[in-house]
Amino acid sequence: MVKVGIIGATGYAGAELVRILSGHSQAKILWYGSKSYIDQKYAQVYRNMFRIVEDVCRDDSLKELADQVDVIFTATPQGFLAGVLTEEILSRVKVIDFSADYRIKDAAVYEKWYGIQHRSPQFIPEAVYGLCEINRSQITEKTRLVANPGCYTTCSILTAYPLVKEGLIDPDTLIIDAKSGTSGAGRGAKLPNLYCEVNENIKAYGVAGHRHTPEIEEQLGYAAGRPLTLSFTPHLVPMNRGILVTEYASLRRRGDGSLPSWDEIRAVYDAYYKEEKFIRLLGKGECPETKWVEGSNYVDIGFVVDERTGRIVMMGALDNLVKGAAGQAVQNMNLLFGLPEGEGLELVPLFP
Amino acid sequence: MVKVGIIGATGYAGAELVRILSGHSQAKILWYGSKSYIDQKYAQVYRNMFRIVEDVCRDDSLKELADQVDVIFTATPQGFLAGVLTEEILSRVKVIDFSADYRIKDAAVYEKWYGIQHRSPQFIPEAVYGLCEINRSQITEKTRLVANPGCYTTCSILTAYPLVKEGLIDPDTLIIDAKSGTSGAGRGAKLPNLYCEVNENIKAYGVAGHRHTPEIEEQLGYAAGRPLTLSFTPHLVPMNRGILVTEYASLRRRGDGSLPSWDEIRAVYDAYYKEEKFIRLLGKGECPETKWVEGSNYVDIGFVVDERTGRIVMMGALDNLVKGAAGQAVQNMNLLFGLPEGEGLELVPLFP
Amino acid sequence: MVKVGIIGATGYAGAELVRILSGHSQAKILWYGSKSYIDQKYAQVYRNMFRIVEDVCRDDSLKELADQVDVIFTATPQGFLAGVLTEEILSRVKVIDFSADYRIKDAAVYEKWYGIQHRSPQFIPEAVYGLCEINRSQITEKTRLVANPGCYTTCSILTAYPLVKEGLIDPDTLIIDAKSGTSGAGRGAKLPNLYCEVNENIKAYGVAGHRHTPEIEEQLGYAAGRPLTLSFTPHLVPMNRGILVTEYASLRRRGDGSLPSWDEIRAVYDAYYKEEKFIRLLGKGECPETKWVEGSNYVDIGFVVDERTGRIVMMGALDNLVKGAAGQAVQNMNLLFGLPEGEGLELVPLFP
Amino acid sequence: MVKVGIIGATGYAGAELVRILSGHSQAKILWYGSKSYIDQKYAQVYRNMFRIVEDVCRDDSLKELADQVDVIFTATPQGFLAGVLTEEILSRVKVIDFSADYRIKDAAVYEKWYGIQHRSPQFIPEAVYGLCEINRSQITEKTRLVANPGCYTTCSILTAYPLVKEGLIDPDTLIIDAKSGTSGAGRGAKLPNLYCEVNENIKAYGVAGHRHTPEIEEQLGYAAGRPLTLSFTPHLVPMNRGILVTEYASLRRRGDGSLPSWDEIRAVYDAYYKEEKFIRLLGKGECPETKWVEGSNYVDIGFVVDERTGRIVMMGALDNLVKGAAGQAVQNMNLLFGLPEGEGLELVPLFP
Repeated sequence: MVKVGIIGATGYAGAELVRILSGHSQAKILWYGSKSYIDQKYAQVYRNMFRIVEDVCRDDSLKELADQVDVIFTATPQGFLAGVLTEEILSRVKVIDFSADYRIKDAAVYEKWYGIQHRSPQFIPEAVYGLCEINRSQITEKTRLVANPGCYTTCSILTAYPLVKEGLIDPDTLIIDAKSGTSGAGRGAKLPNLYCEVNENIKAYGVAGHRHTPEIEEQLGYAAGRPLTLSFTPHLVPMNRGILVTEYASLRRRGDGSLPSWDEIRAVYDAYYKEEKFIRLLGKGECPETKWVEGSNYVDIGFVVDERTGRIVMMGALDNLVKGAAGQAVQNMNLLFGLPEGEGLELVPLFP
Repeated sequence: MVKVGIIGATGYAGAELVRILSGHSQAKILWYGSKSYIDQKYAQVYRNMFRIVEDVCRDDSLKELADQVDVIFTATPQGFLAGVLTEEILSRVKVIDFSADYRIKDAAVYEKWYGIQHRSPQFIPEAVYGLCEINRSQITEKTRLVANPGCYTTCSILTAYPLVKEGLIDPDTLIIDAKSGTSGAGRGAKLPNLYCEVNENIKAYGVAGHRHTPEIEEQLGYAAGRPLTLSFTPHLVPMNRGILVTEYASLRRRGDGSLPSWDEIRAVYDAYYKEEKFIRLLGKGECPETKWVEGSNYVDIGFVVDERTGRIVMMGALDNLVKGAAGQAVQNMNLLFGLPEGEGLELVPLFP
Repeated sequence: MVKVGIIGATGYAGAELVRILSGHSQAKILWYGSKSYIDQKYAQVYRNMFRIVEDVCRDDSLKELADQVDVIFTATPQGFLAGVLTEEILSRVKVIDFSADYRIKDAAVYEKWYGIQHRSPQFIPEAVYGLCEINRSQITEKTRLVANPGCYTTCSILTAYPLVKEGLIDPDTLIIDAKSGTSGAGRGAKLPNLYCEVNENIKAYGVAGHRHTPEIEEQLGYAAGRPLTLSFTPHLVPMNRGILVTEYASLRRRGDGSLPSWDEIRAVYDAYYKEEKFIRLLGKGECPETKWVEGSNYVDIGFVVDERTGRIVMMGALDNLVKGAAGQAVQNMNLLFGLPEGEGLELVPLFP
Repeated sequence: MVKVGIIGATGYAGAELVRILSGHSQAKILWYGSKSYIDQKYAQVYRNMFRIVEDVCRDDSLKELADQVDVIFTATPQGFLAGVLTEEILSRVKVIDFSADYRIKDAAVYEKWYGIQHRSPQFIPEAVYGLCEINRSQITEKTRLVANPGCYTTCSILTAYPLVKEGLIDPDTLIIDAKSGTSGAGRGAKLPNLYCEVNENIKAYGVAGHRHTPEIEEQLGYAAGRPLTLSFTPHLVPMNRGILVTEYASLRRRGDGSLPSWDEIRAVYDAYYKEEKFIRLLGKGECPETKWVEGSNYVDIGFVVDERTGRIVMMGALDNLVKGAAGQAVQNMNLLFGLPEGEGLELVPLFP
């Protein structure tokens, strides 16, 4: 039984982690860390957990926690983990971090996009970017620190990865138009997240400057074998959960000027994802919808070849709190401890 | 392993049954009956089940099905089961019916409220009203036919039952104001169920004439030990799932004219529900919210004593597709086959 | 041209007042008071008003304002106006207050329900309760202070008023189950008002203790000719605008034990409301829906006689920000200045 | 007073036309055509119009109507008007068509994208594409036939027009990612438009094949001075009203390789739109949101220059039923009859 501690258990991502782990047969949460609700019953903060979780919230001491558990999930703001992580802690416990602190290999890039100083860059080299379907071989029982990917990034990268890797598209033409439910904005009491401000409304935000951009560029750059620059535009959609990405890129033409066929492209996707439990490749003519993956760890991917423009339109959908956060974190935990990768993640999407 | 057949597998309640049974360790669906989608892949009709259910939809022959399975769930319109049920079928298979066909003991009452003739009233006497928390002792391995309660009725009855049974309230003053999400209206393509008609709107419907009224009256009448007449008003709420009932009744005063205290009333609720796995009694000052039970088999119940008016306001919340339909049906199935009552129903509510 | 000042112009009700007055041919806003946004352009706070309102927000000095305008609307929290109102101000300017400060004639009742001391009870007697359809004769060019009714109260009172006044129902049996959109909770950045907390959810709140209760009781008590106690339960509904009330009461039976007919009851409603511009009495079998009045100053009222229980179910719907706040305030302003009562209020409901 | 007839008055766009014209000082609707609701009161079909419109619905005879009115609006499906329009009709009455029948100059293109034969191509040459801000000079008292632009197209074209026209962007790189509320799908009772299918969901549809594509390409092609091919992807968003387009294109670099500045680009927009009543150019750093234009005839446009990629991200928002349909149609009517262009269109956006 893996002993688990959570720092930041009362944010939406932390709460989803609690929900998922409550159905995990080989993990047990010992510590519900929440700076804001210390000594309150967890089930008072999230009443869905009434009669399921009896524990009270505790503070966020990583050091104390390291002695008591096998793995710590930090569902905390940018900069928190980098500010407290030490070799002593890492020598005693594995850490899976939900923030961007260890996702980006170049600390200068991190500091530029996030506007904060990185306080423990010495751990960046060993941190594994926990996109299981891509980096599975690096997520092992020896791994100490996992940088759990962001929600937009997981969806954006997985949707395009095989085509970038195999050179089917020109990566310099890649444009990602992303749409997210509101839980991605967190549980902070801020005016733009009020019901009446979000409901019956859609908007873009962080245009040409959203922090998930360099993370997507870095990972797809590895796939392309060279640095990339791409356009990424997130939008806020009036729904609780779900991310949909619509990605545009020019297909590389063959010597005779023709485009690869849908079937040929699909074969490339199959080569990468056919055996993946959590990636569902949709049939020809089918477009992913966020509702069909809600509450589950699935990513649904589909695409259309546009003969007129020579472009491909790739689409991916996932639940931002599951595959985009807590579900992927549990998937990483399973790999770290040699458990079946899907344990606790057999979550059937809820419809409607 | 219980072999299961479903007639009406492609309505919302049928689909929820599929979702729940897909996580049940001791039941297996052999037949996805759907008159509208015969020979289509089930996962094409409900794409959340892609890669989870591989079967195709089949027709709705109860007779054929009776030879192949141990239990048939009929998630079908009023009158369907009554029109096809025979002794031969019942002698070979158990049936759990989602319609009102066998819920009401007096066929004349059924015919009046539903406006259709009951075509097999001979089975009414043996049918058990499958409200597990109330009628558990009658739902046994010998039971052949279960009338699965309606969504509004489950919530309405459970919320008031202990107080009616113990005589704490005057049942003639009982008023039930109910609010339901839109999945309760089914998946039929009707104008009033269109997104733009439901969204940003709330309305009452079926005022003083909704078909769930006699069902509530009958069951609470058994509790009261005499026939009852009550007011029941359903409302359509712009959300997918969930029922909230707000029930008003005059408290019976004690000899000295005083009202029972909150703690005394709570003790009565405790006597009936404390050990119930799926009923959660909320603390003083807490009101149930549908979101906290979404996707789960829980009913959350709370109440407030109004000293000023001498009334009690009882509130109950459940997910209309789970405890209000498919979840309760599985709970009944578990009882029918001697399985643990909660098997397959350890569904943690999804929030947000 | 009536010169208008607004204190609290950046709350939702204040903003709706700005929207309505921008289409009023005989009023002009000279002062957009907003403590939170002083010196910011109003159209930056409410971007719907971009290119429509060019003014900047100013502070909330009632005294200074009194010299510059003919009427001040105070869309401010409870206690604000009572804390600053003086005879000097009232001698120079009319005031229409959106808060409860002058709605309740008994200051002790106000202090008990609102939990604050009333700091200028001397103005209570002269304040007119601005429910135009009921108190029109008292809202004249001589009136100095109007207490604009609350949103729940406007809907609750108007729906039952003729039947209470004419003694058709037993007022001691009156139960009001009210449902409101989320704009009623204001624009404050509070956790319970976040999108993800409200969306896909319904709950009751303030059960047996909501502050609008004594206001409804007082006004319906005047109609009944004696003090009343009633049950009032508000619910939060996932939509921006709209209030629906469902009101239950026992009909007084005639000497022969029979109930009044639908037509007889309708005749009573007609006697009070037939000539009212903003009250629409629905036909037999029709139930009001909030969406059909959205954005307008209408109240839609319908009812059903329940022969089985001897009760009537009355239903009323309005837009909480219009007839429930800013629209009614403008209706009051029109009366105060001898303008046509409907000026600026010819707002056609927006559907869908 | 302009006498108006409407064919298709009971679709969402037709109903919005009724709403807008009910506030128009110089137009009067004489004919509410609706094949589905003949002889029913209009206000029974759209209960928001109760006590505002007293008329009954009539059939859809264009010929009969031509004798009675000055202008006919046809808010009808593709192919309807083309099937019934004659020279005789056009010689007696002006026609403003909401369908695509006369929007596309090349009948072969129309027939390919719409899959139907064009039955009166002889009127295509004289039809004016009624995008008022672009084609105002052609919409005069002499014009007989106006092809009212589609909702997606209005938003897509206006957002990019000045930059295409002035050559600031490379039109071959133009990608339009559009998001629409559900009223755009009409009032037909179809499963994909049910509340539970749309709510809490987002999806792309018509990818690389949506019928508005050739319309956008044709109009922007005129601006560019040569034929264009572009990517257009619509998405269905869980809200009633509103379209947001996010458009991506590569900026043309100057001789020295530098990009034009935000201010330079804004100056180009200003040159085209500064005096336009219904186009609001947002400030630097501001992104349009659909909610801020809801219920109004405004288009809000903003843009961001992305130095990293050399692209511009243009964004536009409008209400699909107003500027995207009925509002623009009234704007066209005003021009056709020499009325002030904004008459009846001074609609202040409703927030929240």
